[in-house]
Amino acid sequence: MSNNRKVVFNDVTLRDGMHAISHQYTTEQIAELTQLIDESGVDIIEATHGDGLGGSSIQYGFSKESEEDIIKTAVKNAKNAKVGVLLLPGIGTIEHLERAREWGASVVRVATHCSEADVSEQHIKKAVDLGMDTVGFLMMSHRSTPEDLLEEAKKMESYGAGTIYVVDSAGALTMDDTRRRIALFKENLSTDIGFHGHNNLSLGVANSIVALEEGANRIDTSLAGMGAGAGNTATEQLVAVMNKMEIPHTIDLYKAMDAAENVMKPMMNRPVQIDRLSLTLGYTGVYSSFLLFAERAGKEYGVDPRDILTKISEMGAVGGQEDWIIGVAQDLAKEKAHA
Amino acid sequence: MSNNRKVVFNDVTLRDGMHAISHQYTTEQIAELTQLIDESGVDIIEATHGDGLGGSSIQYGFSKESEEDIIKTAVKNAKNAKVGVLLLPGIGTIEHLERAREWGASVVRVATHCSEADVSEQHIKKAVDLGMDTVGFLMMSHRSTPEDLLEEAKKMESYGAGTIYVVDSAGALTMDDTRRRIALFKENLSTDIGFHGHNNLSLGVANSIVALEEGANRIDTSLAGMGAGAGNTATEQLVAVMNKMEIPHTIDLYKAMDAAENVMKPMMNRPVQIDRLSLTLGYTGVYSSFLLFAERAGKEYGVDPRDILTKISEMGAVGGQEDWIIGVAQDLAKEKAHA
Repeated sequence: MSNNRKVVFNDVTLRDGMHAISHQYTTEQIAELTQLIDESGVDIIEATHGDGLGGSSIQYGFSKESEEDIIKTAVKNAKNAKVGVLLLPGIGTIEHLERAREWGASVVRVATHCSEADVSEQHIKKAVDLGMDTVGFLMMSHRSTPEDLLEEAKKMESYGAGTIYVVDSAGALTMDDTRRRIALFKENLSTDIGFHGHNNLSLGVANSIVALEEGANRIDTSLAGMGAGAGNTATEQLVAVMNKMEIPHTIDLYKAMDAAENVMKPMMNRPVQIDRLSLTLGYTGVYSSFLLFAERAGKEYGVDPRDILTKISEMGAVGGQEDWIIGVAQDLAKEKAHA
Repeated sequence: MSNNRKVVFNDVTLRDGMHAISHQYTTEQIAELTQLIDESGVDIIEATHGDGLGGSSIQYGFSKESEEDIIKTAVKNAKNAKVGVLLLPGIGTIEHLERAREWGASVVRVATHCSEADVSEQHIKKAVDLGMDTVGFLMMSHRSTPEDLLEEAKKMESYGAGTIYVVDSAGALTMDDTRRRIALFKENLSTDIGFHGHNNLSLGVANSIVALEEGANRIDTSLAGMGAGAGNTATEQLVAVMNKMEIPHTIDLYKAMDAAENVMKPMMNRPVQIDRLSLTLGYTGVYSSFLLFAERAGKEYGVDPRDILTKISEMGAVGGQEDWIIGVAQDLAKEKAHA
């Protein structure tokens, strides 16, 4: 460990995990999970629609319970842990944040695409004004070089964020990729540093360990990995490895294991696991929104959709460039014909 | 990469994977899987009862097909890959090995507990005489220090093995543990070096990458991780990461992904995944044979079976010390009463 700061666990079972249950947790489930996560010794429990405050909508899918009920239920059932919310500027607003604060949330993660920290300024400043534990959350961090990512992190630091995260939204970072980003943050930021991993390449636990080794002191996990795609880093798996490595923390391994096995897994609609789809996303590093288009174009032009996604990713697609897909599919088909 | 030797993929779908299907693959399944694995570019396909030659028995479970049919089917359907067998001295004999050789197997892994390489001498020497690609396979490698493990590896080298494996049978090695063992082998052995990983701590892919970085050039994988416990390192996941890291190899990623998803997963009796049981085994590093006894004793004495297993592991239990469990459970119950 390159520092002596306490490792803070930020549980995302009730936020990223919302994606895996189509935002349909009931307040009873939220209450039960909050209690178990709290009892396991986690520091922060994030509870929000998967896409953050204001996410419940036709576009992102309606959550079963209202934002107010989700947050209040978590606050009510967390005896020791603080309750956090996610806020994506553009989806959530300052007003959403103020209400979440009133309902008892004391941590906020202001999330932007890895190259767009600028849009977080107003929200981060407001969160600091509200006296919240304020976190900058740089999503899809694999799409920026470590150096470019650091520039965005510095912006968030200048706005007042106390912690900045490397967020591996697509589970696309290798261990070297993670090491370089966290090490550069550690060298150049005076904030706390966080890591949010996904397991698409089966590296969620490994990347979290690497992040801790390089000086990250805030880590996102969820029970049984409950989260989007191949899932997040599973609390109980990371804690087992930390115990073996004698990295200090405050989590009760057995409680986390039992909550994951006895309560979380039976609640899942489908197993959270690495399958061809989630592995493809981690491998190509694109948003899942491209998948359906790539499959259709692949069929039409007789090329492998994974080749299309790889090409699209190399071209720098971030979201909204679905129209590139046909062109890429046509080019690949031509290459194939001439090969 | 610290050497330029080609990375050899040794597929264990049809051997370690036997455990996950209670040794019940049919010859039709063996034929189909062999063809797909062979087409994906794998170098060696191991096909044997999960416990190796001679394993089909009351004690270890009968396989659906005869040893002869398993091996001959693999040999017949592998156009490019060599076919390998596993041999645990004490279960399999020299006679088994000679027959396997006659049936077309050209690779053998002579497997012993990590501290018992001595028992492999006769079998390794015979395999070399038979002109086979001869591998020493040190099981439960986490139970020996790197230095002690090296001593056993040197014995296997002296008997004539061309490759020596660090075998993480219980999926209990951390990345540092793996690094130390492979690095020491690399420094002190002139053989090729192999790594066999399990995913109990979610480190199968990460440990395999670490092993490659430290100079291993033979890696065990299986389609979709098909294997005992939490499964082996999944071929398609490791290859995806190797591609991203630009580590050279000969595997067709898409073929491996498709075979895993379309053929292997539908054949599984139960999903091969990390659950409380397999995580407990990886965490405590004991053989699964202790589990049932620990659960019973835990219930009887009111202590957590995981604490019993951890203690048993610290005491150096390897197998056959099930009688220690009651004593440990009683001690833990006393400690609890006085706490």
